[in-house]
Amino acid sequence: MSLSAPLRHAQLNRGRFVTELKDFVRFPSVSAQPQQAGEVKQCAGWLANHLHQIGLETVKAVPTPRHPLVYAEWQGAPGRPTLLIYGHYDVQPVDPLREWHTPPFEPAVRGNDFFGRGASDDKGQLFAHVKCLEAYLQTRRSLPVNVKCVFEGEEEIGSLHLPAFLMGNRQALAADVAVVSDTRILAPDRPVITYGLRGGLALQLEVRGPKHDLHSGGFGGAVHNPLQALCEIVCRLHDAQGHVAIPGFYEKVRPVPGCERAYLAHVGPMDREILRDAEERRGWGEQGYSLFERTALRPALTINGLAGGYQGPGGKSIIPARATAKLSFRLVPDQEPRMIDRLFRQHLARIVPPTVQYRVHTVSMARPALIDRRHPAMRAAAAAYRRGFGAEPVFLRSGGTIPIVNTFQEVLGIPTVLMGFALPDDRMHAPNEKFHLPNFYNGIATCIHFLAALAASPPGRHATPFRSAAMANEFVRSP
Amino acid sequence: MSLSAPLRHAQLNRGRFVTELKDFVRFPSVSAQPQQAGEVKQCAGWLANHLHQIGLETVKAVPTPRHPLVYAEWQGAPGRPTLLIYGHYDVQPVDPLREWHTPPFEPAVRGNDFFGRGASDDKGQLFAHVKCLEAYLQTRRSLPVNVKCVFEGEEEIGSLHLPAFLMGNRQALAADVAVVSDTRILAPDRPVITYGLRGGLALQLEVRGPKHDLHSGGFGGAVHNPLQALCEIVCRLHDAQGHVAIPGFYEKVRPVPGCERAYLAHVGPMDREILRDAEERRGWGEQGYSLFERTALRPALTINGLAGGYQGPGGKSIIPARATAKLSFRLVPDQEPRMIDRLFRQHLARIVPPTVQYRVHTVSMARPALIDRRHPAMRAAAAAYRRGFGAEPVFLRSGGTIPIVNTFQEVLGIPTVLMGFALPDDRMHAPNEKFHLPNFYNGIATCIHFLAALAASPPGRHATPFRSAAMANEFVRSP
Repeated sequence: MSLSAPLRHAQLNRGRFVTELKDFVRFPSVSAQPQQAGEVKQCAGWLANHLHQIGLETVKAVPTPRHPLVYAEWQGAPGRPTLLIYGHYDVQPVDPLREWHTPPFEPAVRGNDFFGRGASDDKGQLFAHVKCLEAYLQTRRSLPVNVKCVFEGEEEIGSLHLPAFLMGNRQALAADVAVVSDTRILAPDRPVITYGLRGGLALQLEVRGPKHDLHSGGFGGAVHNPLQALCEIVCRLHDAQGHVAIPGFYEKVRPVPGCERAYLAHVGPMDREILRDAEERRGWGEQGYSLFERTALRPALTINGLAGGYQGPGGKSIIPARATAKLSFRLVPDQEPRMIDRLFRQHLARIVPPTVQYRVHTVSMARPALIDRRHPAMRAAAAAYRRGFGAEPVFLRSGGTIPIVNTFQEVLGIPTVLMGFALPDDRMHAPNEKFHLPNFYNGIATCIHFLAALAASPPGRHATPFRSAAMANEFVRSP
Repeated sequence: MSLSAPLRHAQLNRGRFVTELKDFVRFPSVSAQPQQAGEVKQCAGWLANHLHQIGLETVKAVPTPRHPLVYAEWQGAPGRPTLLIYGHYDVQPVDPLREWHTPPFEPAVRGNDFFGRGASDDKGQLFAHVKCLEAYLQTRRSLPVNVKCVFEGEEEIGSLHLPAFLMGNRQALAADVAVVSDTRILAPDRPVITYGLRGGLALQLEVRGPKHDLHSGGFGGAVHNPLQALCEIVCRLHDAQGHVAIPGFYEKVRPVPGCERAYLAHVGPMDREILRDAEERRGWGEQGYSLFERTALRPALTINGLAGGYQGPGGKSIIPARATAKLSFRLVPDQEPRMIDRLFRQHLARIVPPTVQYRVHTVSMARPALIDRRHPAMRAAAAAYRRGFGAEPVFLRSGGTIPIVNTFQEVLGIPTVLMGFALPDDRMHAPNEKFHLPNFYNGIATCIHFLAALAASPPGRHATPFRSAAMANEFVRSP
């Protein structure tokens, strides 16, 4: 089966694809901000309409209690495998707004880069799959495999309603494998298939002292400042060597086999590459591990935000009544978020001084994941990259968290191929987020090859959902 | 000289005085907020007009580059001492607004208390002096001493233009002593003459890490988080015993004589009174000192505010690019703010880890002050309290900072009598600020007695500005 027609279609229509991606990015679909719910909904409508126009069927925006998800399918290949394509059209908040060189929702192309909030996370990567489907449907009126698209509007706020949607539609969503393009590759000529993800546990910690702010002239030195107490608590979450200082935190960390460490050291990013991407001069963290290992094989704890007391210009002479920190753990197999949550709370009970009160709120949890590198769909993805990017992909673990990988496994019983097109310096979640346009074009070609390669996989392997024993073992199980 | 006429006038007109104070408090004269500059100016106009109506002379609102100050005088007692009465008509911001039981600028009397922003700090206390002057001028058409009133509109923003006004009008403002009512007494039957003030040094510290926010999934564990680094820095500013951990910080602290400590322990507030006022259950700070000593005799360092990273609802997976803290020291004799500023910066240079950058900005400085308790004007104030409040006043040091006390000493060469009428639970700077009306009435009577007692001081002591050698020694000198 020649792919020349869909590949040519994709090549000839690059200009229009970029124009359409601009229309997509122009929606300020920030799922975290209630005042933008209308814009999120409009973005879903635009996406559904677009999927309908390129020839997908059963297209609908499915309402949820918060933001709709967009569903579409094409089931014209009976007997062939079914691929579930997942992506998300919601985006991160844009602050700090003043650091953007061009407005986040006025997409701009400069050189080979496409700038805008959601350019790479995840509108651009999602759109590579959409344009792949268009390339097939417009040139051949068919796809090599059956396809079900699930494009979510709540990924950046923890996929609040996706699990319920999957649970309630197990039959209708039955598939052999899922593909998600929401990860990074090392460089335009170093594609990556991600086979490991860190889990997550996000918490909010509030420390309270006096009932109301006190004058720091009258009381400074005699009352424990809850803001200072919070800093003291934060300091006791790491030791001087960069380890998380919570007793038992590392107990369940599964040792990484020497051969896997050696492979990752060989193909993964070097310290200087990670520092370059971070625009940092020095690394930090656990001794005895490379910077890549610290982000991908080792768990971590980050203070994402902290606020207390006076924030305005000049000074204000107060001892603030309260202070709040937002913390998040990144977890690795076999750390269970629920257990880490318990250990964290036990640690707090030991270290919070009796001079203040505190309250912990668990914001979200996600388990870490490992995907079997020998799975046929992984091999299909590798072959597709080879042709789409003209380079052999490497298998890497990522420091990020994609909770739906676990959800797909647990609810639908299928593995997920993480086929990323973003670059390390794409500034996901940060000002001046971008998408490298050559990656967009190569990504579309890779998707085209991936569908064909999946269709060519041994048919027997698709009779029941792809699932090898090895993979099931490597997955972190539900408790 | 009988005081019965002015005292009776003050007693008979209490109702009207409260109505006038309501008019005064109704102006939202928040000096920190540029959008309220017009209201500050209107408040100054109202006050000037009021001073003119009660019979003062040379009344004027003196413009400055920001907010006007109000000047008035009465010089009909040649050969008698001249008293400079200082107060401020500007007020603190009102936030958090939702915690006020009645709106901050709609003054309300409940029981014996007068509620409103500025009720005690400092409109109510200032107004006690104004009503004293009225009581003399309306009943006798003269005052026992010469008076110069300086009522400022920028106290809450650091008296930006007052020093220049004093410098430029040294001759016109020549006086023997200043009186300021902007301090607290212990209880309605425990009046206080404050003879010591802590100095201040306010700083802002910014810590920067990566050039822009990083994804905490991709980089968490491998890059030093500037927000965490700031917490670590904050933790290294105190030791585990509550001492400030900056080398040399305590070096210049002048030992307090045992007799003074014993006197203060006898007359000052007890630990439980301080905790009651703070609505706290436990004290904190330097062992070996009572809570009162920690606030009044010992220096302190307070984190007034700290902010970094994501502050909104839910979570955001970032390593923030920067974090900022607002810090303020309270200093005691003979700590020089400039020296402490230098020690703080030297300490930072030692403790800030090489993985982050930082910047320090000095916001304001004020030296600590001590006023000679044996000064004749202090004795006059004690006698006045005895009659106005029917109770013997105690001499206390305060933890607060009133920089103009130093300014009057340095520019005009005169000491300041700190004759307070506010209570510890008056919630200065906080929601539901109030003024205890019996203190207002007793304060007016005290002012009436104070003027008479000053006039009766030995005339020789007023030929040159009041200034004893002991006082000059006790004052902290300019460097």
